[in-house]
Amino acid sequence: MDKGRLPARLDGYGLIKPFGGGISDLIKRKAGFSLPSGDGRPGTKLLPTLRAAIEASGLKDGGVISFHHHLRNGDFVINLVLAEIARMGLRDITVAASSLFPVHAPLVDYVREGIVTGIRAAYITGPVAEAVSGGLLGRPAIMQTHGGRARSIECGELTIDLAFIAAPAADKCGNLNGVDGRSACGTLGYAMVDAAYARYVVAITDNLVPYPASPIDISQECVDFIVQVDAIGDPKGIVSGTTRATTDPVGLRIAHAAAQVIAASGLLVDGFSFQTGAGGISLAVAAEVRKLMQERHIQGSFASGGITGYMVDMLEEGLFRGLLDVQCFDLKAVESYRRNPSHQCMSASMYASPRTRGAVVDQLDVMILGATEVDLGFNVNVITGSDGVIMGGSGGHADAAAGAKLALVTSKLNAGGYAKIVDKVTTVTTPGETVDVVVTEEGMAVNPARAELRERLQSQGIRLVPIEQLEEIARNRASLAKEERQDEGRIVAVVEYRDGSVIDVVRRV
Amino acid sequence: MDKGRLPARLDGYGLIKPFGGGISDLIKRKAGFSLPSGDGRPGTKLLPTLRAAIEASGLKDGGVISFHHHLRNGDFVINLVLAEIARMGLRDITVAASSLFPVHAPLVDYVREGIVTGIRAAYITGPVAEAVSGGLLGRPAIMQTHGGRARSIECGELTIDLAFIAAPAADKCGNLNGVDGRSACGTLGYAMVDAAYARYVVAITDNLVPYPASPIDISQECVDFIVQVDAIGDPKGIVSGTTRATTDPVGLRIAHAAAQVIAASGLLVDGFSFQTGAGGISLAVAAEVRKLMQERHIQGSFASGGITGYMVDMLEEGLFRGLLDVQCFDLKAVESYRRNPSHQCMSASMYASPRTRGAVVDQLDVMILGATEVDLGFNVNVITGSDGVIMGGSGGHADAAAGAKLALVTSKLNAGGYAKIVDKVTTVTTPGETVDVVVTEEGMAVNPARAELRERLQSQGIRLVPIEQLEEIARNRASLAKEERQDEGRIVAVVEYRDGSVIDVVRRV
Repeated sequence: MDKGRLPARLDGYGLIKPFGGGISDLIKRKAGFSLPSGDGRPGTKLLPTLRAAIEASGLKDGGVISFHHHLRNGDFVINLVLAEIARMGLRDITVAASSLFPVHAPLVDYVREGIVTGIRAAYITGPVAEAVSGGLLGRPAIMQTHGGRARSIECGELTIDLAFIAAPAADKCGNLNGVDGRSACGTLGYAMVDAAYARYVVAITDNLVPYPASPIDISQECVDFIVQVDAIGDPKGIVSGTTRATTDPVGLRIAHAAAQVIAASGLLVDGFSFQTGAGGISLAVAAEVRKLMQERHIQGSFASGGITGYMVDMLEEGLFRGLLDVQCFDLKAVESYRRNPSHQCMSASMYASPRTRGAVVDQLDVMILGATEVDLGFNVNVITGSDGVIMGGSGGHADAAAGAKLALVTSKLNAGGYAKIVDKVTTVTTPGETVDVVVTEEGMAVNPARAELRERLQSQGIRLVPIEQLEEIARNRASLAKEERQDEGRIVAVVEYRDGSVIDVVRRV
Repeated sequence: MDKGRLPARLDGYGLIKPFGGGISDLIKRKAGFSLPSGDGRPGTKLLPTLRAAIEASGLKDGGVISFHHHLRNGDFVINLVLAEIARMGLRDITVAASSLFPVHAPLVDYVREGIVTGIRAAYITGPVAEAVSGGLLGRPAIMQTHGGRARSIECGELTIDLAFIAAPAADKCGNLNGVDGRSACGTLGYAMVDAAYARYVVAITDNLVPYPASPIDISQECVDFIVQVDAIGDPKGIVSGTTRATTDPVGLRIAHAAAQVIAASGLLVDGFSFQTGAGGISLAVAAEVRKLMQERHIQGSFASGGITGYMVDMLEEGLFRGLLDVQCFDLKAVESYRRNPSHQCMSASMYASPRTRGAVVDQLDVMILGATEVDLGFNVNVITGSDGVIMGGSGGHADAAAGAKLALVTSKLNAGGYAKIVDKVTTVTTPGETVDVVVTEEGMAVNPARAELRERLQSQGIRLVPIEQLEEIARNRASLAKEERQDEGRIVAVVEYRDGSVIDVVRRV
């Protein structure tokens, strides 16, 4: 250009930075016809090894790396990455995973060796959970909710240096989806937030597809590097073939009672929206709700959350207009997401973040929640067992409870010899102020703060009992006494509520 | 919660902010069963009037509002919004639109009255363009590229106080798509960046659909308010019924020559990628390329950009694996995007931003570009006419030229009595360093910086001429002499290259 044409500064515009050829801030030049025009940086994104990608990201001691859990207990990626990080001699790494499973047992050794010194997750089960409870980490682990994790990334509280996306299908530019290939897992809802905000994003795939991938669920402008490996997971552990409702008579009794509450709630009308997990009682509730919707000729608006084949059946029967899916729980859900446009993906942020302009959980009519323990204040624990050892986490539990008009906990009175309805929960995961009803095999209790709901249910002939009565029956039937909680001993995990405030802590066992 | 359980601070975590009920940062509480649980803020997002939405956003004098141009010359939204802003007595507003059309003529009055004092766009045509050229704005207008606009939003250079999204379909929570309803326009690629980054986002719709919308192209966590109006646009102006290739013999000769260059370039092999606009010569090039691909049994990877029915036909014939679509130019493209999963949406950022991890334009093999003028340095002007008056803009011109391996300009030698191949272009839009070949009816010239391309074309029997020769013929045939450019007079517009540097200015005519 003829820079003489340009003034140095201009009123109403400011300093003029003259065009200097190429793209100034990217050091990217179109050097000639035969050279690749680049991917926004010199060279190609497709790197030969995981190490090359980690090195290219500049990860250093003390860095934060993130993972998503759509491959669940079939995931190979976390172990592959940590083994490489160990070989590279990096130390003091924080692992910010959406969830950790038994397959991630090698993480325990990396913690022991000081390679990993921080853990954040919305759900931890297996050897890592036990190691955290045993005090192996120097710093407390941070337990988040799915929505709280999204929020913490979006507001900059959790800064991710390097996000790893396990990609069942990826093209050379980093357009990704979860529906194709041997490791198909369905939607990539949890990974979408990491991909949008991490400093560097590496996709790890066992299925490099021609450009452009179709569908594109995470798109190329978010992905820095792609690494191809033999396998990102074990299909047997990624999705179950089918998810089934319980056949246990006690479970079925609870499910039936829960459905009666929903039927009487006034919410089961056209436009009804519903979420439930993949547990046996939850699915039995879904089966009851399905019958009720068929009988009443109701078309619901949507079902959300992790999606199972049960919800797919209900969609296909026209009982819901759409599914909003953050992760697919079984093969039927994966297949449905692949082919049915009414079965849509949602990011963890759209699903449950409390800092967006409105999450899907806020549109829920009814949420069916599980519980390890429920207490007299309707607080729910799904993080620790009655022995105080970590064995789970909120996932979307606290998010959906806060959003749904009717948050309904189903629980047996006892499990493993312990009472599940207790005076005070071992660890508060979901605050009682967001829980409406607790349903057990010996009756159901409504949160005293929900006078209107109590009256409505009673007027429909539903028999309610005080939660104290359920607690007493459970206590009397328990063969093991719950340890009195001691508020001393080292804190091994901090339990963050979805807004980032601390709702409880877990102490060393 | 029993806050006594929590320490005030914790090593390895920091200060503990105890859970205080509800969502601390949002002042959002689940008040009771019968109350709506809210949309992340008190009340509902669906507001009765545009004014209510503008007021709720807190827009003040001096604010920046943004618009996208998928409704093109059928758009009602910009005029509706500005009329309301005028009635509200707001002043000194900047309009950051992706493009402005003749239908936006009322903007001229708002500028005259001091209601609007800043304009940014990637393309301006009609009365607004003439008014800017005439010096009506106090501050220079800023002409961006589509990719540069996305970049400036992403990097915080352009801060949008309030984005208005014209939504052919919207649900009550702000899930949006462009494919349903009387104002269907196809993808919403340009609006996606505004929706992701603006302080407040208002969707304006004439088609409120049941929750959840399907498909969702812009999702609810980005949208603050929804306002329903009678009509967001005039369908006749939104998409043309069909787009047609030129039938003019000179245009066809240029198109044929351009196709010969592509055929000889070595790029027309499996995996070929291609972009062209909706102009008559461009579509004639596409028709030639289609024949060549059929003859050679080539399957391309993708076609991108604004998409026409021509590209849809090529997709459906299997000539491309996919389409990447930032805006649909005709009804056939809208219909294809609605039903064909291989016809995918891309945001302006994914399309063309130079600050992402790799835009689609960087994957292009061949880009067919138009021109108002081309000069001896291969610089292209698509912003001003030969009389210096603004009548267009880069759109994605400079972005695609920079990305494509072969950036090919098609141009007649003369138009309206003026030469189009000139010594120096009136306004530099796209720098010559990114332009490879200029094809005219009297021969074609290769950029001297592309020695390898020149040799390849010559070895394939393509006859090339120096661009100086084309300039001479054009000059001799011109009945009107181009005004000598005077680098004085008030600057009425700054032309930003895609990286934000200033590549030229436009002076008052």
